[in-house]
Amino acid sequence: MKKLFLIVFVTLLVTSAVQAQRKIVHLPDIPGYVTLKCDFHMHTVFSDGSVWPLNRVAEAYRDGLDAIAITDHIEYTPKKDYIPVDYNAAWKIAEPAAKEGNILLVHAAEITRDMPPGHLNALFITDGNALVKDSVFDAVSEAVKQGAFILWNHPGWKSQEKDGIPKIYDMHRKLFEKKMIHGIEFFNSSEYYPLVLEMCSKYNVAVMGNSDAHGVISESYKAPEYSNRPMTLVFSKKRDTESLKEAMFAGRTAAYFRDMLGGREEYLKPFFYQSITVGKVFYENDRNKYFEITNNSDIPYYLVNGTAGAPASITLAANSVTRVVVSKKFTGTLAYDVKNIMTGPDSVLKVEIKY
Amino acid sequence: MKKLFLIVFVTLLVTSAVQAQRKIVHLPDIPGYVTLKCDFHMHTVFSDGSVWPLNRVAEAYRDGLDAIAITDHIEYTPKKDYIPVDYNAAWKIAEPAAKEGNILLVHAAEITRDMPPGHLNALFITDGNALVKDSVFDAVSEAVKQGAFILWNHPGWKSQEKDGIPKIYDMHRKLFEKKMIHGIEFFNSSEYYPLVLEMCSKYNVAVMGNSDAHGVISESYKAPEYSNRPMTLVFSKKRDTESLKEAMFAGRTAAYFRDMLGGREEYLKPFFYQSITVGKVFYENDRNKYFEITNNSDIPYYLVNGTAGAPASITLAANSVTRVVVSKKFTGTLAYDVKNIMTGPDSVLKVEIKY
Amino acid sequence: MKKLFLIVFVTLLVTSAVQAQRKIVHLPDIPGYVTLKCDFHMHTVFSDGSVWPLNRVAEAYRDGLDAIAITDHIEYTPKKDYIPVDYNAAWKIAEPAAKEGNILLVHAAEITRDMPPGHLNALFITDGNALVKDSVFDAVSEAVKQGAFILWNHPGWKSQEKDGIPKIYDMHRKLFEKKMIHGIEFFNSSEYYPLVLEMCSKYNVAVMGNSDAHGVISESYKAPEYSNRPMTLVFSKKRDTESLKEAMFAGRTAAYFRDMLGGREEYLKPFFYQSITVGKVFYENDRNKYFEITNNSDIPYYLVNGTAGAPASITLAANSVTRVVVSKKFTGTLAYDVKNIMTGPDSVLKVEIKY
Amino acid sequence: MKKLFLIVFVTLLVTSAVQAQRKIVHLPDIPGYVTLKCDFHMHTVFSDGSVWPLNRVAEAYRDGLDAIAITDHIEYTPKKDYIPVDYNAAWKIAEPAAKEGNILLVHAAEITRDMPPGHLNALFITDGNALVKDSVFDAVSEAVKQGAFILWNHPGWKSQEKDGIPKIYDMHRKLFEKKMIHGIEFFNSSEYYPLVLEMCSKYNVAVMGNSDAHGVISESYKAPEYSNRPMTLVFSKKRDTESLKEAMFAGRTAAYFRDMLGGREEYLKPFFYQSITVGKVFYENDRNKYFEITNNSDIPYYLVNGTAGAPASITLAANSVTRVVVSKKFTGTLAYDVKNIMTGPDSVLKVEIKY
Repeated sequence: MKKLFLIVFVTLLVTSAVQAQRKIVHLPDIPGYVTLKCDFHMHTVFSDGSVWPLNRVAEAYRDGLDAIAITDHIEYTPKKDYIPVDYNAAWKIAEPAAKEGNILLVHAAEITRDMPPGHLNALFITDGNALVKDSVFDAVSEAVKQGAFILWNHPGWKSQEKDGIPKIYDMHRKLFEKKMIHGIEFFNSSEYYPLVLEMCSKYNVAVMGNSDAHGVISESYKAPEYSNRPMTLVFSKKRDTESLKEAMFAGRTAAYFRDMLGGREEYLKPFFYQSITVGKVFYENDRNKYFEITNNSDIPYYLVNGTAGAPASITLAANSVTRVVVSKKFTGTLAYDVKNIMTGPDSVLKVEIKY
Repeated sequence: MKKLFLIVFVTLLVTSAVQAQRKIVHLPDIPGYVTLKCDFHMHTVFSDGSVWPLNRVAEAYRDGLDAIAITDHIEYTPKKDYIPVDYNAAWKIAEPAAKEGNILLVHAAEITRDMPPGHLNALFITDGNALVKDSVFDAVSEAVKQGAFILWNHPGWKSQEKDGIPKIYDMHRKLFEKKMIHGIEFFNSSEYYPLVLEMCSKYNVAVMGNSDAHGVISESYKAPEYSNRPMTLVFSKKRDTESLKEAMFAGRTAAYFRDMLGGREEYLKPFFYQSITVGKVFYENDRNKYFEITNNSDIPYYLVNGTAGAPASITLAANSVTRVVVSKKFTGTLAYDVKNIMTGPDSVLKVEIKY
Repeated sequence: MKKLFLIVFVTLLVTSAVQAQRKIVHLPDIPGYVTLKCDFHMHTVFSDGSVWPLNRVAEAYRDGLDAIAITDHIEYTPKKDYIPVDYNAAWKIAEPAAKEGNILLVHAAEITRDMPPGHLNALFITDGNALVKDSVFDAVSEAVKQGAFILWNHPGWKSQEKDGIPKIYDMHRKLFEKKMIHGIEFFNSSEYYPLVLEMCSKYNVAVMGNSDAHGVISESYKAPEYSNRPMTLVFSKKRDTESLKEAMFAGRTAAYFRDMLGGREEYLKPFFYQSITVGKVFYENDRNKYFEITNNSDIPYYLVNGTAGAPASITLAANSVTRVVVSKKFTGTLAYDVKNIMTGPDSVLKVEIKY
Repeated sequence: MKKLFLIVFVTLLVTSAVQAQRKIVHLPDIPGYVTLKCDFHMHTVFSDGSVWPLNRVAEAYRDGLDAIAITDHIEYTPKKDYIPVDYNAAWKIAEPAAKEGNILLVHAAEITRDMPPGHLNALFITDGNALVKDSVFDAVSEAVKQGAFILWNHPGWKSQEKDGIPKIYDMHRKLFEKKMIHGIEFFNSSEYYPLVLEMCSKYNVAVMGNSDAHGVISESYKAPEYSNRPMTLVFSKKRDTESLKEAMFAGRTAAYFRDMLGGREEYLKPFFYQSITVGKVFYENDRNKYFEITNNSDIPYYLVNGTAGAPASITLAANSVTRVVVSKKFTGTLAYDVKNIMTGPDSVLKVEIKY
């Protein structure tokens, strides 16, 4: 009888699935700084998340992040009947894996109160359990005493602000004055709050973007329109925790999600120019001149409102070369608004293309 | 000043991601029975898995499954420093969601011992905590007393069988004799064990296929070659827990993974014929006759060793129509081996195509 | 020396790519009719297209279409320096392949004039070369003499109507009166013209949707938001050319593209109801009743403006099961507008869901 | 009456589809040379291809190629009843578009004879029509007189070599001696011929890889396992036609397809090292040292047969960072075979990883 199958044991999974690789996120450094890709807001089974802390490290590794913070709620622990409360547990579990995976893990927790002041992430803390206080002011003070960077989360979250408009309450004003808020989320989960750019300028704090993940990251952002989860870009002197912290307190950040950037012109202008390379004219005929712009970043740039005589708009697709055709007679400079780089609630980055 | 953005709060996530839909798994029923898509082996944070029990229900819902079992290990609870041991916790947490999601949730646990007998899933139990026994025989007896279907997991798992060859030990023989094993895994996670088909025939037990998921299902099976996780198909009189149980004890099952089916000819032959529709000759010219075979299932069928004069092989792609061209002179019957339907360790299903 | 490679010749392409399969387009028949998936507007190298006629058949086969027409321009043949003009050539080349591929190939040509009357496809002709006439009226008359169905293409095309608004000129009025226009394109390529629904009702002609492909179909519609090219659905008594023609002259059509349907309520209402199956309540608790709606079609349906007390909106994802939760107290009928089924320029289909 | 739709004309296609972008193929330059990505073998409607010449330029642009040749058959023109024969037509049509698209278009034709010598591409010719000769030797001589680089196509093609084994016939030997063959295809379409590496070494000619496309490139290589069409990498002093030609005659080439490279160690060794960056040890614990290897290229590298004490195999996924863990005690050098870089019919590239 012919033997069709000799095998008694077969592995069907190919190697690629066995050990995940770290993605390279193509975002440029800016002069003087390395650009760290970070997510400072996510949950685990130790509060209302649905995954074990190690998953957050594995997800960050696959997504090519440099730094993350697990920020389980202090005041909201719906799984406590099954999992005893310990605000340092997630950190303790995740830390060895983060070290082995070359991820900077920031010890953190989320102080979770009604508005005002709403939800505040305490990043770079040393003991989460010490943040259990009746008064929110006491909790934040304790965090600050531990050296924490205080991040105001989703200030326009509709569960706390019906109209979705972030508002500065007296309590926020006091916290800003006492240097007890150091950053505000522009991107959170699936939302963004344009006014945050103005607030960050006014109070001189960092623009942030985070996932606020409760479930599985790859499931939340699997639709084709997401190239990535929301993240905070930190322009840091080096890739280590001390430098990261220094950069954040100095406000050298930007927020990035869904092909959109939000932050200060001071950082986003060099970021844009470092993303692209403009070639020389490679061909010229009776009518036109042709040159190419290479966008080496993962972010497409939508250039609009072009100078008269130049193309009205140019899309610089991510990781692509775009050919630009200008009239032979055109000798001016190509100036554009970059529609998807917000520098204020009603302003976008203006750039010039020199070829 | 020109206002570029009036918005103060924006939702970037589209509706499609907000609430997952239940996939339709296109697999045919067979005469007299509905085909239930099931996964009877998976873990959560209550043993060595990395997700909360509710995630298993949500995954099953999205994957279009009809029935699942959460089978946390009795004897292996590596997270017990953080999560107190309770072998019924996962069931209690998941059950309300399963009801609301129209998923048949089977109360279960995994008796986890050295080989022999190796790992055994006890399905349809009533109290997991009662399975904590020194002797494996006592544990299985208790499960059987509760009415359990005992599934022998991954019998050729290399951690327990160095050569990957499943072996029937005395202890298994005794358990089979006492009707204390009712099924064996042919597919487990990324592996399959051809000899299991022979073992199931010999001892008259059910052929099973399960994910043995520890991590996130969508991450484990995201490579393009996976259309689905491993699953057990149960040919059940109705879609309810009683009928499901009856069908499993009666051995009316097959295993399905990665475009491969394993099981008894008795069930897989009608399954194949219910998957396809053979059309009439739609065109004929001097040389050839043309007709179409429609495969309405998610499983491609690879027909090989064709009758002389007919196409040597035909691939019936999943959810597709395949055109077949035969010589005008050919009047015989088209007979094939279906390469990816295994009915024994060295046999595959033989079919005839009548057009 | 160890031999690493014994192979001297290797095929790297897997079978799946060798012979394309015919996709099954999941769209329901309606009572009394089969739903034929058709594209009656496309070009080849014989006018200003970029592919050989056989490619149009191969594309249609892969896309699961039932009928197509190649409609090269009569009055616009920019490749004539390289390819001598013959308005029947594409038909002659494509016809044998269409027969072997079970595609109904409609002999056709595009009468290509300034507005009015603009571009008109003559479908079901017998000789394209006879349509070369100075006067457009003579050309249309000749086509009609041959038995043609005359289709008014892209009536709001911006190259001919600056404001994009389709307009009925005197010439159109005359052609309608003389029964010399039998259908109008609602979808063309990437555009749609809501007013066409009104025009079709008024003049009692067929609502059509076509690709107007000049390049490669799979390249034009490769973005993830396209599940398909624009197509005309014809509700035909049988799947043959005679029945197809009868149905088109009778106006039993609808247009389909990008998850949107346009056409008469008379056909789209049964089409919607044939797409879905509403299950019984499968679970009920103190507050809610749960049931499922299965959408077996490739078209998601966006139900909005729900009856008070019922969910305000429901998305019935394509080929998916959607769970619906209604309050236990709710006893009324679920009534919705289907946002993506247009029955007029400012009306959408209204449906009731009975569970 | 409520107006649901105000629009009368709507564009459904998003900008991204309107104007294709040029992909960046991530392959490194090697010291002294730029790596040009080329495909020197493809057909159009002017022989037995199915697309217009402009499509070949558009495809090359999208695929990020630097240079292409359209090589329609001299002796095989099956469409001549519809398209009059002109062996320079494709070149004339494509050239302006190539210039505007920054593609180096090589004027070419395929001398198409029985084996021996089989099919020969004449690249860098000046007049295709002059290659129409009875004797193949005369045809090749004419091409060489025009300055052509002669490429021996698919030497093991089963239609000409039943066993698939490339063979050097007397006629080839003569052509090699007279310097009338300058390169041989290692990759052609879906096949590769390991012996070609030996033949190229022996006769000191260039290793080539080309698509031999007849249909649409994106359709032929759409399966997920293809990251690209077959291509010839040319290590050129500059990116212009003269330099390209010089490099090819000098044999500075390699062939690339489906994650496999074939060519001389002399070029592929620096190519490999330029693809990767090896980081410093970023973490060390009691047992292990951890470091990262970044692979900035589109080609995954499969390292096997590792030095004792080091990981037996390492997969450096494309555009990813791979973490490597070695025992703390290990102090040797990591040496590997790169399984997917062939340097001979039975040899692969050997590399060392210094961290």
